[in-house]
Amino acid sequence: MAEFELTCFDRSGNSYKAALMLELTGCDWAPRGVDYFNGETRTEDYRAFNVMGEAPVLFHGDTVLSQSGVILDYLAEITGRFGPESPAERREIWRWILFDNHKLTSYTATLRAMRSLLKTGETPVTEFLDKRARGAWDVLDRQLRTRDFVIGDRPTIADLSLCGYLFYDGEIGIEIADFPAMAAWRERIRALPGWKHPYDLMPVAPLPETA
Amino acid sequence: MAEFELTCFDRSGNSYKAALMLELTGCDWAPRGVDYFNGETRTEDYRAFNVMGEAPVLFHGDTVLSQSGVILDYLAEITGRFGPESPAERREIWRWILFDNHKLTSYTATLRAMRSLLKTGETPVTEFLDKRARGAWDVLDRQLRTRDFVIGDRPTIADLSLCGYLFYDGEIGIEIADFPAMAAWRERIRALPGWKHPYDLMPVAPLPETA
Repeated sequence: MAEFELTCFDRSGNSYKAALMLELTGCDWAPRGVDYFNGETRTEDYRAFNVMGEAPVLFHGDTVLSQSGVILDYLAEITGRFGPESPAERREIWRWILFDNHKLTSYTATLRAMRSLLKTGETPVTEFLDKRARGAWDVLDRQLRTRDFVIGDRPTIADLSLCGYLFYDGEIGIEIADFPAMAAWRERIRALPGWKHPYDLMPVAPLPETA
Repeated sequence: MAEFELTCFDRSGNSYKAALMLELTGCDWAPRGVDYFNGETRTEDYRAFNVMGEAPVLFHGDTVLSQSGVILDYLAEITGRFGPESPAERREIWRWILFDNHKLTSYTATLRAMRSLLKTGETPVTEFLDKRARGAWDVLDRQLRTRDFVIGDRPTIADLSLCGYLFYDGEIGIEIADFPAMAAWRERIRALPGWKHPYDLMPVAPLPETA
């Protein structure tokens, strides 16, 4: 059995944040597939270990953790990689992980789900999400105009969080080329030794038959 | 000059999370009003100290912090109140602060803004947000059925984060009475010594003239 196990699936950028961290740090880990689109994360069995009903969940010995930000922080501590080097850096990293959760991933992931998985077509909801996602991308782009990575000159878990959905090219309906600093930053992440695309890193979760 | 200053305004539940923490811990603090609804947080002057263009921002000596979750964590460390007592508790607190940012506050705050500030009426977007907010409230309610506060038997910064928008009665369009464990928990927060309602704690930001 691997030292770390992670519930995750191919289309989940939130899972990818944790899976990419495990991969980049060379952890001995194995994915646990989860039938997300047919409701597995919302069953009582699943909620017994994650009441939030979400992936990813990390299993490490007796420790069971959900929320990609917490998993990233935990793995940074254990591996000594991609973490802060001072209390001020720690706060800066968390500031961007929170921004990612509240704004960037929140709007981007839902927009992509509607456009590419649920295929709702363009609706008032996609219009709302598109505008909000672009606002968040603009903030990140501003931050990256003067630095290579989000908190400075080296990659941290803040970058691994923020990039979670950004490798799903063509699925979001926003072109990263319109945000040049973000586009350059994404290439720097892609160049990290051991980097893999989400579709090469996590097991397939089948879409529901009605999709 | 007060030891702590906080940019905040009356209708901002995110600001309230930090303001309530400052108040409950008896910090020497003063609010800095911000003309949010007329765009002050999105000006270049404001972005010079917070590129994210959001309130709250905490000023403490040379330290300038945004994101309510980071401010709460910082104040818990400084005051020794409402923080974790172990690494496992620290992770559990962050797990709920992230859930709050990604799901509970994210959907609740935007829904409330549309229904009570922008007065959009019922639209596909309010329908979308209402459903998602109720899903998040249900998760919190489940968690609170078996404990007094989010991570156990005492209040922590996770509670102060999650309750940020929940005292704006009648503005959200979801009745807390439909979530009995949450309703009882909210009364426990209201009973904390020094508790104040957001409208009694933060300066008024005028609504835009077009509203």
